[in-house]
Amino acid sequence: MAVYVGVDVGGTNLTAGLVDDRCRILARAGRKTPKDGTLCRAILDLAREVTAAAGARPEEVVRLGIGIPGAVDRARGVVLHTPNIRMENAPVADLIRAEWPVPVALENDAGCAAAGEYLAGAARGHRSAMVVTLGTGVGAGLIVDGALFLGCGGIGPEAGHMVIHPGGRPCNCGRKGCWERYASATGLKQTTREAMLRRPDSLMWELAGSPERVSGKTAFQAARRGDEAGREVVEDYLFHLGLGLANLVNCFHPEVICLGGGVSNEGDDLFLEPLRRMVDAESFNPTRDRTRLVKAALGNDAGIIGAAVPLPGHP
Amino acid sequence: MAVYVGVDVGGTNLTAGLVDDRCRILARAGRKTPKDGTLCRAILDLAREVTAAAGARPEEVVRLGIGIPGAVDRARGVVLHTPNIRMENAPVADLIRAEWPVPVALENDAGCAAAGEYLAGAARGHRSAMVVTLGTGVGAGLIVDGALFLGCGGIGPEAGHMVIHPGGRPCNCGRKGCWERYASATGLKQTTREAMLRRPDSLMWELAGSPERVSGKTAFQAARRGDEAGREVVEDYLFHLGLGLANLVNCFHPEVICLGGGVSNEGDDLFLEPLRRMVDAESFNPTRDRTRLVKAALGNDAGIIGAAVPLPGHP
Repeated sequence: MAVYVGVDVGGTNLTAGLVDDRCRILARAGRKTPKDGTLCRAILDLAREVTAAAGARPEEVVRLGIGIPGAVDRARGVVLHTPNIRMENAPVADLIRAEWPVPVALENDAGCAAAGEYLAGAARGHRSAMVVTLGTGVGAGLIVDGALFLGCGGIGPEAGHMVIHPGGRPCNCGRKGCWERYASATGLKQTTREAMLRRPDSLMWELAGSPERVSGKTAFQAARRGDEAGREVVEDYLFHLGLGLANLVNCFHPEVICLGGGVSNEGDDLFLEPLRRMVDAESFNPTRDRTRLVKAALGNDAGIIGAAVPLPGHP
Repeated sequence: MAVYVGVDVGGTNLTAGLVDDRCRILARAGRKTPKDGTLCRAILDLAREVTAAAGARPEEVVRLGIGIPGAVDRARGVVLHTPNIRMENAPVADLIRAEWPVPVALENDAGCAAAGEYLAGAARGHRSAMVVTLGTGVGAGLIVDGALFLGCGGIGPEAGHMVIHPGGRPCNCGRKGCWERYASATGLKQTTREAMLRRPDSLMWELAGSPERVSGKTAFQAARRGDEAGREVVEDYLFHLGLGLANLVNCFHPEVICLGGGVSNEGDDLFLEPLRRMVDAESFNPTRDRTRLVKAALGNDAGIIGAAVPLPGHP
């Protein structure tokens, strides 16, 4: 039996899975992402753990793929730069292979999520598909004709760093007004906090306790219970999310955009349906063949599957 | 001798050229774009004119390519929609072939400009290249691996319709705050007019005569002569142009972006150099392999050459 190990390196959590060639996850394991320089050790430990847990032998593992929240050099197996974990020019593939002689593949995490949804999720069967993940930032990966779309430097669409508010909220990347400052879960929480401070009467105070403790759900919960300030936050959030999605449609015109991340689990009435109306109205495509907006299907598994299993025709 | 006819259908001008297989234009002709339903007749007249002018025989023409400012169905040779000329579902290829039995190829005009620069201009030799044309609107075409990048509906990157100012200047497309409302020659003229009305002391009044008669050069001329209001218009224009270019870099990471259109002929000190500094500072690419910003090389010829000559490996 040929199996694959997929590892998703998050800014907070490190998760791994043993995946078969039909993209089924046979075993999972996870821990906090170490920030003390022992990431490769942790990856090896998790890889051995999921292999054993699934009852597979290490020699059955034909590929160990790792999704990195940053820029990678695929050919050399080197992590070039990760804003949140602080690795510069780390020869991760060589370090892994020194202990486990298996082909090691590095890929950007947003690319892995796109590959996973394309292999086994909501993007399956589409000629072109974009996966947009709403988390700490906004990640985006694009599949075209069965391959990841990568530009120079091997960088995928960094759509989160598209400025939509000139001079707006400062972003870690150095720009001001990046889309992800408004459309990520982090952006939603900031908008929620700002609304609470303006509206001491809002139900959001009762739901969250204090501005420091808001979640991506606070405003949606309040809006469902008729709170005006909560509804305004949701409207403002969807406006900015939809605006950037329509920008992506007009730039890339993928057959489908799959929305992932915790926020995308809100009910369709308050999330997907208003977004679809907005994106449809603002898309520049006079043909009948228009981008469809759907929910991603695999959740966090997309990153594990996409890291583990190569796209058809790719090593 | 195998020759090609290339026709560039502009909102104002219709131009044609006879092009050889080394992308040299052997003869040119042009007239105003007819808006009375006689476009195919005018295209045939110009095609015959340039063929005769170059001393070629009609049977030597192996392909007649037409760049359309709108959406086309390439397989059926139908113009689906053009915002500025008002054609809906026009079977242009069939109408041409009824009088001149030659393969007729329709392409979007921004795609033709990109193909032309890729075949014979500033994008030559690049694996991926974007051509951004600053005219009435902002056109963008992308070449990846020797082919035009097209999304669903056969639509290329409609980057001009990326909103960068939520709720900003209304656009013909229905959105508000589209990039082209600020970064096109039209946008520059509007910004110039607005500044003149605020600043009756500006040199721009002397240069243009009245706000209705400003050109894309007015503010640049005033800035060169030390006019503060003119300098502010140029700064504001470059800020918005650079912001959108950095957005495109972050989304597509092409090896090169070629800037075309009349505005791009301003001197490097007031145009290309400040743009390069801004785009370089705002690009999200931690590798050494970064997008380069250059001027397009072929001017209006790019659209004729790109319409005429097929990309290598394409019919």
